[in-house]
Amino acid sequence: MGEIQLIEIKEEILSDNKNLAEDLRKRLKKEKTFMLNLMSSPGAGKTSLILSTIAALRESLRIAVLEADIDSIVDSEKVASAGIQAVQLRTGGFCHLDAPMVTKGLDAFDLKNLDLIIIENVGNLVCPAEFDTGAVKNAMILSVPEGDDKPLKYPLMFSICDVLLVNKIDFLALTDFDMDAMKERVFRLNPKITIIEVSCRTGEGIDVWADWLASEVREFVR
Amino acid sequence: MGEIQLIEIKEEILSDNKNLAEDLRKRLKKEKTFMLNLMSSPGAGKTSLILSTIAALRESLRIAVLEADIDSIVDSEKVASAGIQAVQLRTGGFCHLDAPMVTKGLDAFDLKNLDLIIIENVGNLVCPAEFDTGAVKNAMILSVPEGDDKPLKYPLMFSICDVLLVNKIDFLALTDFDMDAMKERVFRLNPKITIIEVSCRTGEGIDVWADWLASEVREFVR
Repeated sequence: MGEIQLIEIKEEILSDNKNLAEDLRKRLKKEKTFMLNLMSSPGAGKTSLILSTIAALRESLRIAVLEADIDSIVDSEKVASAGIQAVQLRTGGFCHLDAPMVTKGLDAFDLKNLDLIIIENVGNLVCPAEFDTGAVKNAMILSVPEGDDKPLKYPLMFSICDVLLVNKIDFLALTDFDMDAMKERVFRLNPKITIIEVSCRTGEGIDVWADWLASEVREFVR
Repeated sequence: MGEIQLIEIKEEILSDNKNLAEDLRKRLKKEKTFMLNLMSSPGAGKTSLILSTIAALRESLRIAVLEADIDSIVDSEKVASAGIQAVQLRTGGFCHLDAPMVTKGLDAFDLKNLDLIIIENVGNLVCPAEFDTGAVKNAMILSVPEGDDKPLKYPLMFSICDVLLVNKIDFLALTDFDMDAMKERVFRLNPKITIIEVSCRTGEGIDVWADWLASEVREFVR
């Protein structure tokens, strides 16, 4: 064995954000608009999941998307091509969304005419987990090629989410991804989390996810 | 088409870091130790690439690893199991390494007895690109399952790297990843970058990568 040395580095986390996020949730409750904050690594499938979700729920819910992207509008264009309103927050280097940024975004929507806003957060498993966006529920995607050890390495993200979508399950046969071990690691961090296995490519599991989300929206806006 | 609205959010970037990074590079030059900063999304294969690199170069170079991880030491343990010294910076929520953190880490090594230090940065395509770590060269991994559009969405990371490893090429047949389109996007951002296709799983391309790195080290330490 080589030697391992451990050096701790601490960080202070922003404070006022939490209060503003609570205000946002009250506003959403009053307007009867549900907001979902969707997070993941780059390339895990956020945009694909949003497009699948729109396809599954657009007949029953009025949906819009708040896109965070550092320097491109490719995701907004995909959403807009599906005929859905997209507000793009071009973050110019920011690694996450916080409540003030989301407030700016929400001001661009007509909330009275929306049941569901999906936030596509910046592709990042670290910083977005630290900032309450004001969303009603937090969702994250872990894609199979990323590996089953991610809960060990990004524990905060797994701890703060209400639902975990395990995407790209059509890749399972090609990898040594251990689904049971991954779930055990996640439940140890967050016993209440809902885990749903999906493939945006094959469509597998999207109905389960859409049912979960629709039920959460109905609960909130009734 | 739905509607797209664009809201700009600006950020100021830390200043003193650059000077400290330059000092670090001078110190490394004096000690004849090359330092590589390895970055990628979570799960793209940083640790696997480091282990493959150690296997390929340990006979010819004295290697150590500086690990950044938010809350676990699993990567350090893997490196240490290979009989290589690992210094672990447990960043406690930080989303990137900067020059002051790397300075802390370097102080734990005996630089005189090392030819190559590999920094495994935090898994994140955003923040690490903004902070010069003092490394001699910057490397990044893009794994095939992440998709060929990542240069459009994380342009700074692709702009600041000297070499791009395209990992998990054994997944190519299962995806619609367009290698030529991806390379064109990368070269548009960074015409001088070296791109090497590898698979840490099959070992394909690791020899090309090891040759590139060994030649960079020799150039720097001579």
